[in-house]
Amino acid sequence: MHHYVIGLDYGSDSVRAVLLDAHSGAEMASHVHAYARWKEGRFCNPSISQFRQHPLDHIEGLEATIRGVLSRAKVDPATIKGICVDTTGSSPLPVTAAGIPLALLPEFADNPQAMMVLWKDHTAIAEAEEINALAGSWGGEDYTRYEGGIYSSEWFWAKILHVIRQDAKVKAQAWSWVEHCDLMTHLLTGSQDLTQLKRSRCAAGHKAMWHPSWGGLPPKAFLGQLDPYLADLRDRLYTDTYTSDVPAGNLSAEWAERLSLTTDTVVAVGTFDAHAGAVGAGIEAYTLVRVMGTSTCDIMVSPPEVVGDKTVPGICGQVDGSVLPQMVGLEAGQSAFGDVLGWFKSVLLAPLQQLVQQSDVLSPSQKAALLKEADQNLIPLLSAEAERIPLAESLPTALDWINGRRTPDANQALKAAISNLSLGTQAAHLFKALVHAICFGSKKILDRFEEEGVEIRQVIGIGGVARKSPYVMQTLANVLNRPIVVAESDYAPALGAAIYAAVAAGLYPDVVQASQCLKSPPEATYHPQAEAVSLMGTLMEGYDRLADFVESITEN
Amino acid sequence: MHHYVIGLDYGSDSVRAVLLDAHSGAEMASHVHAYARWKEGRFCNPSISQFRQHPLDHIEGLEATIRGVLSRAKVDPATIKGICVDTTGSSPLPVTAAGIPLALLPEFADNPQAMMVLWKDHTAIAEAEEINALAGSWGGEDYTRYEGGIYSSEWFWAKILHVIRQDAKVKAQAWSWVEHCDLMTHLLTGSQDLTQLKRSRCAAGHKAMWHPSWGGLPPKAFLGQLDPYLADLRDRLYTDTYTSDVPAGNLSAEWAERLSLTTDTVVAVGTFDAHAGAVGAGIEAYTLVRVMGTSTCDIMVSPPEVVGDKTVPGICGQVDGSVLPQMVGLEAGQSAFGDVLGWFKSVLLAPLQQLVQQSDVLSPSQKAALLKEADQNLIPLLSAEAERIPLAESLPTALDWINGRRTPDANQALKAAISNLSLGTQAAHLFKALVHAICFGSKKILDRFEEEGVEIRQVIGIGGVARKSPYVMQTLANVLNRPIVVAESDYAPALGAAIYAAVAAGLYPDVVQASQCLKSPPEATYHPQAEAVSLMGTLMEGYDRLADFVESITEN
Repeated sequence: MHHYVIGLDYGSDSVRAVLLDAHSGAEMASHVHAYARWKEGRFCNPSISQFRQHPLDHIEGLEATIRGVLSRAKVDPATIKGICVDTTGSSPLPVTAAGIPLALLPEFADNPQAMMVLWKDHTAIAEAEEINALAGSWGGEDYTRYEGGIYSSEWFWAKILHVIRQDAKVKAQAWSWVEHCDLMTHLLTGSQDLTQLKRSRCAAGHKAMWHPSWGGLPPKAFLGQLDPYLADLRDRLYTDTYTSDVPAGNLSAEWAERLSLTTDTVVAVGTFDAHAGAVGAGIEAYTLVRVMGTSTCDIMVSPPEVVGDKTVPGICGQVDGSVLPQMVGLEAGQSAFGDVLGWFKSVLLAPLQQLVQQSDVLSPSQKAALLKEADQNLIPLLSAEAERIPLAESLPTALDWINGRRTPDANQALKAAISNLSLGTQAAHLFKALVHAICFGSKKILDRFEEEGVEIRQVIGIGGVARKSPYVMQTLANVLNRPIVVAESDYAPALGAAIYAAVAAGLYPDVVQASQCLKSPPEATYHPQAEAVSLMGTLMEGYDRLADFVESITEN
Repeated sequence: MHHYVIGLDYGSDSVRAVLLDAHSGAEMASHVHAYARWKEGRFCNPSISQFRQHPLDHIEGLEATIRGVLSRAKVDPATIKGICVDTTGSSPLPVTAAGIPLALLPEFADNPQAMMVLWKDHTAIAEAEEINALAGSWGGEDYTRYEGGIYSSEWFWAKILHVIRQDAKVKAQAWSWVEHCDLMTHLLTGSQDLTQLKRSRCAAGHKAMWHPSWGGLPPKAFLGQLDPYLADLRDRLYTDTYTSDVPAGNLSAEWAERLSLTTDTVVAVGTFDAHAGAVGAGIEAYTLVRVMGTSTCDIMVSPPEVVGDKTVPGICGQVDGSVLPQMVGLEAGQSAFGDVLGWFKSVLLAPLQQLVQQSDVLSPSQKAALLKEADQNLIPLLSAEAERIPLAESLPTALDWINGRRTPDANQALKAAISNLSLGTQAAHLFKALVHAICFGSKKILDRFEEEGVEIRQVIGIGGVARKSPYVMQTLANVLNRPIVVAESDYAPALGAAIYAAVAAGLYPDVVQASQCLKSPPEATYHPQAEAVSLMGTLMEGYDRLADFVESITEN
C-alpha cells in the first residue's frame, strides 16, 4: 500500500500544494492558486510599503490546492498520511481567543490593519528602531542577540506595535497574534483554543525573540516598556514552541469534509518557506542552502556543539531546530539578488516603453508585441553579451545594495553604486558588474559565517535565479571558489513541507532520513574555474573599496 | 560701399565659411563642407585613438566653402577685404621647406604618419609622459608652467615625437611641422619660404611651450634630451609669434584665381576654434566663454596686470594675446560634457537596437524608422522627465569623468562613477545625476580660476549644448550660481575669425571694437534660482566626496 503526504507552500503571490509518494518521493500532482484579492492590490499601499493580505485569500487557496492535487493524483483519501504548511514570514495577523482572524469578522472585513502583515511590509520601521534602542539601552539581556543583534521592521513585535498604534479597534479586539504558518495549522486542526496551538519554533525563534535561555518570549518588563498591550499580550501567546517534525494534531472533521480527506491525516507544526526549502534541497550539517530569487535567503545548519553558546553577529538569527530538529538553524540573506538585475532591466526598459508608445510607425498590437518580446529577451540578451566580455580590471565595479543590506550587518540605509565607468562602458558591461556585485555580496555572507567559526562544506542553490541563470551561477562558483549544486525541483519549499509531514505522520524516524529519500536531486553542479577565481579576487578588492566608501558616507 | 570679410572655421568633421558685412555684422552667406576622406574613416584607427586627416580634405574644403559663400552672397570680389582661418588644435602636420604637406607628395599619399594629427588623437600618451618627466626632473625651467603644469598627449611636441619614432621616412623628409591653422594661412598667402610664415601665438603658446620669458620655444638643450631631431627642428621652426589681428600677408595670385578673389584681400594670422569662438561671442576682460559641445573649451581673458607673473595651475594654458591681443588668454575645459549624456544615450540605445533588430513583429523599414525616432527622441524625453524630478538628496550622485579629467588638474586615468542608487532609481534619475555631474565639473573649473585670483564677472555659453539644452543651461546657472548668457550664433568660431579678418584688413582699430560691432547677440539668459542654488550646494558635497574616493583609488 502506498502512503502519501501533502506539502503546502504559501508564497507572496500564490500558494502551491505538492502531493508526494512518501516512499518513492515521486511527485503525484501539484497545484497553484493565486490570491484573488492580493492580485487586485487591495489593502496595499506600495508608496508607504504597506503590504497586507486577506486571510480569505489563504483559506480559498488551501481548499483549491488540496482539492486540486487530490483530483489529479486520484489516490485514496485514506492514504494521505500527513500535511504540513510553510508560509512567508514574519507575516503575523491579529486573531480572537478562538484563533479566528479579525479580518473574518464583518466589522474588520475591509480594514487593512486587521489583515495579515506580509513579510515585506515596511510600515514598522519606527517601531523596529524603538525595539532596537530599548534592547540596547534597558540594562538587561539583549533579546535581539539570537536574531543577529538587530531587530527588523519586517518582524513580529515591530509589526504588532505598529498596527495597535494605528488602529484602536484592532488593538481592542486582537486577543492574540499568530504567524501565518501557525494560523493555517490552527485552522486545519480545528481547535477552538488558541493556547493549545503548537507554535512554530522557526517563526518564534527567528522573528519573535523567543529563546529558551530567557524562558521563551522576552519578559513583560521588557515588552511593557514598548507598550503595556505587548506585556498583556505575552500572557496570551506561548512559552513552548515546536519543530516541524512534531504533529500539531489531526485534521479536523470540518476540514476533512471540506477537503474530502479523513481525520486520520496528521497536520505537522508549520514553518517558514526558506527553511522548508532547505529541507527540500537536502540540507545537512555544514551545508548552506541559498534560496536565490529576487532576494536571497541563506539557510545553514550546524551541530549545536559547534555553535555552542556563540552568537554569529550580523545575521538574521540562529534557532535550535528551525530547520533540522537536532541542529541549530542559521539564517542570513541579501536584500536584493535577482532584484538587482531586475532593477537594471527596468532602467533600460522604461525609456524603451515610452519611445515605443509614442512612435508613429507601429500599430498598437505591434507595440504590445514588441514590448512583450523586449521584456522576455532583454535579460537573456544582456547575460549572453556579459558572458562574452572577458574578465578585466577595466570592468565597472558595482555594489548590490540597491535595496539596502540585510546581511552581514543589516543596514537598510545603504545604497548601491557603480564605479570605473568610461566611454567604452556599455549596458552589457554594467550588467556584468551587477552580476559580480550580487555574487560578491553572497561571498560576504559566507565569509561572515566562516569568520565566526561556522564551517561551510557544501553550497546548494534553489529558487528562480539558481535554475534559470547558468551565467550567474557560474560567476557565483568563481567568486565563492566553491562548487555550487543546483537542486532540480522548482518546489523545494513545498517538498520540504511534505518531508516534515512524512516525519510527523510517523513514516520516517526523523527529518534527515526522510530528506535523504525524498529531497530534490541535483540537476547541475557549477565548478569554480581557476583563472576566473583569481581575477574575481582582484575585482572583489574594488567591491570592498567601493563598499567602504559607501558605508563611510551613510548614516546607519 | 560695403566691405566684407570671410571667417573660416575648420572643425573635426567639416569646415564652415561665413561671409560677413564688416560694418553691419549681417551674415551674407555661410557654407559647410564635410571632409570626404575623413568621412570614410581613412588613416584612422579608433581602437588605438589614432585620428589623422588628409590635407586634401582641408584644401578641397577651402575652395568649396569660399566659392560657396561668394556664389550665394553675390558681392563684388574686390569688396572682400580679409580672410582668417581658425582650426582645431593642437593638430600638427609635417611639411617640406616650402611648407608643402608631406601627404601631398606621391610617396606619402596614403601614409597616416604623414597626415595631420587631429587634436583628439591619443597615440602620443607615452611621449607626453616623457616630456612631463623631463620637464619636472631636468633641473632647469619647467616649460609646462604656462600650459597648466602638465603636457598633454594631444599637443604639438608629443605628437611630433611619436610620429618620428613611428616612421623613419617621415622623420627624414619632415623639414618642419606646422599647426593646421598656420598651414592654411601659409597656403593662402602663397609663400615658398616657411620661415617667413607668421605663426599663430595661440597655437604656439597653448600647445608648443612657446613663451617670451625663455626666448620662444624651449631651448635645444631641453628638446635634444627628448630626441636630437627636435633640437634640430627648433632651428627650422620660429622665434616670433603673432596675434590674429595681424596680417599674415595678402592672398596669393594662385589662390586669388582659384577663389575668384583679388590679391588685395588680406589674410590674417590663424588661430584655434575655441579662441575665435570666444571672440565671436563677444569676450571681454573678466568674461569666461564656454564652448559647450561633446566636451567644453573654457576661454577666459584677463588683463596682464591682473594675472601678472602668476601661473594658474591645473588649466590648459595661459598665453598673452591668444584671444584678445591686449589680454592674457586662459584656456581650460572638460574632457566630456555633452559626451557624458551621449554615453548614457548609447548605453540605453544599444540594447534597444538589438531587441528591435531581432524582433519578429516589425518590417525592416519599421525597424529603421523606430530606431531613427528613438535616436532623435531619447535625450529630449530624458531631459523632460529629469526636469520634472524634484531636487532631493535622495537623487543619485554622478561624476563626469567618463573620458578622464582635462581640468582642473589633468588626469586621463580617472573614471566616472554613480552612487546613491536604489530600487526607485530610473533612467531619468540617472540622466539628471549626469547633468548635475557635468555642471559640477564646470564649477570646479570656475572655482579654480577664482581661487587663483582670476576674477570671473560674466559667463557666456556657445556651442551645441548651450543652444539646444535649456535644461542643462538652467542647471548650470543654478550650480554656478551665476547668470549664463547664451550667444545666438551657431557659428561663433567662424564669426570670431571674421572679426580678426576685419581688424587685420584695417576696417577696425582693434579686436575689442570690431567685436562690439560684429559679435553674436545673446539669445537667452539663464538666471540662478535661489532654492535650487542651495540644494545644488548640498548635492555638490556628494559629488566632492565621490570625486575624492575615485581619486584615492586611481593611479595618476
